[in-house]
Amino acid sequence: MNIAEYLEQKRVEVDRFLDQAAPPAVLPPTTLHEGLRYSLMAGGKRIRPILTIAAAEAIGATAPGLIPVACSLELIHTYSLIHDDLPSMDNDDFRRGKPTNHKVYGEAMAILAGDALSTMAFDLISRPDLMKGCDPVRQIRIIQELASGSGSMGMVGGQVFDIQAEHQDIDLSTLQNIHKHKTGMLIRAAVRMGAIAAGATDRQLDDLTGYAEDIGLAFQIADDVLNVTGTREELGKNPNTDAERGKKTYPTFYGVDGARKLADDCVTRAITRLSSFGPPADPLREIARYITARKN
Amino acid sequence: MNIAEYLEQKRVEVDRFLDQAAPPAVLPPTTLHEGLRYSLMAGGKRIRPILTIAAAEAIGATAPGLIPVACSLELIHTYSLIHDDLPSMDNDDFRRGKPTNHKVYGEAMAILAGDALSTMAFDLISRPDLMKGCDPVRQIRIIQELASGSGSMGMVGGQVFDIQAEHQDIDLSTLQNIHKHKTGMLIRAAVRMGAIAAGATDRQLDDLTGYAEDIGLAFQIADDVLNVTGTREELGKNPNTDAERGKKTYPTFYGVDGARKLADDCVTRAITRLSSFGPPADPLREIARYITARKN
Repeated sequence: MNIAEYLEQKRVEVDRFLDQAAPPAVLPPTTLHEGLRYSLMAGGKRIRPILTIAAAEAIGATAPGLIPVACSLELIHTYSLIHDDLPSMDNDDFRRGKPTNHKVYGEAMAILAGDALSTMAFDLISRPDLMKGCDPVRQIRIIQELASGSGSMGMVGGQVFDIQAEHQDIDLSTLQNIHKHKTGMLIRAAVRMGAIAAGATDRQLDDLTGYAEDIGLAFQIADDVLNVTGTREELGKNPNTDAERGKKTYPTFYGVDGARKLADDCVTRAITRLSSFGPPADPLREIARYITARKN
Repeated sequence: MNIAEYLEQKRVEVDRFLDQAAPPAVLPPTTLHEGLRYSLMAGGKRIRPILTIAAAEAIGATAPGLIPVACSLELIHTYSLIHDDLPSMDNDDFRRGKPTNHKVYGEAMAILAGDALSTMAFDLISRPDLMKGCDPVRQIRIIQELASGSGSMGMVGGQVFDIQAEHQDIDLSTLQNIHKHKTGMLIRAAVRMGAIAAGATDRQLDDLTGYAEDIGLAFQIADDVLNVTGTREELGKNPNTDAERGKKTYPTFYGVDGARKLADDCVTRAITRLSSFGPPADPLREIARYITARKN
């Protein structure tokens, strides 16, 4: 299979749905809707929604409501980026090659755009029109995955661990704990939500959860490496920001080459988890490989 | 019935559940959990959860999961207070007689505590252990009410309208639009969620929605009046903050006596909406009366 084509095709599908599902910028409160669209439609890679779709495809059964379920993860991801970029957090001026949300709309509106996107994620996957045909028991399990993956024991907790580690002399296990929560839990939720939507068995769900945890780690290690090796053009933001902030990352502990090797090992392990799935899991396998090969 | 006793009894029940359901402060990330508990357990009146419980009682059928459903509204309400108090929003130093969340924990942690509480609301009402016995179709409807009531077309939208109106020479219809969204939509969701949990008919749901809209307006008018007439001791925060900020409120348009009369009219109308309900709706009737009689 051609993974670049697959990713592009799914990205277009996700973008189209997000554009339709997000309130139009002309609808009051117009500034809020314009502001949340500014960040939502800023050209993300849509890795999380694509993982949801690919996980459902790996199970092979139809999954009514799959696209809204997938897109709910992008809403959560976008809200977390807007809040993480705020002056009181990472104080970032650029994101995806554009000024960050608060730089354009101000801090108050950026906080509220994040709040609205977070809630909109749950709105999307509980709307009867969008979720028609989805088994209600599965639907509630999907909602629960999103809530637990993005809350205080998941993504938000990870951001707290991350803030607390800045300018601290942290050890490797602290670093692992940050990433497990900050990026890992939402990627885990993305894969599990797709699998549940398609009616995965417990065994299948376990295998896919293992896959998600492995690629989540690979994803973060690759991000850390890119922060060192990437250019401003490739990243859409300034490189080397971690080192400037005194942040310890995987390259700090293992060097760039060691970190690359570690990410590759995670990818290999992730692919092994899919041994019982056959060809329908090829997109998941190729996504795993893509994670360490990407340039941004 | 004795409304003070009723409110106190339900408040204790809500507080007990919130205390059990919120992650303990010793659980990592400890600062986040301590911070969100600081605001969550700060002695709120718990009006929204109590409305949910009273609405279910008005229907008269058992409603499995009613207490988590009710408490989800307090989580959303608390998160909105934490974010509204932030320096870039209302910049308030006191809330419920205590320093505001960001004054104690800093801005970054306050934003994240709000984010975590918002997500926790959806976690609570999608957890299988807490929602055992709730019909899944009803449960999804409840989740949808919470999401739509608190999102960009509900509570968050209202906060945007409110911010945009500061220091503006707004007219009465703009003021009404602010309150309809900022406080009205969540109160409406509270009543509807309780009614849906107890299996309300469409007709009953319509009547209770009308009731909720009327008391939502009464609640806000009464708040505006209290901001003028209350003392710091009664309110737990500085009085007259609206006037100092140049905010137009109901007393600006109608005077204090005129605003009081308007709130009373809303209460009368709200009670009329309950004419088909009989004695099980007495708590809802008394809550409506309490709204304009309260001192904080």
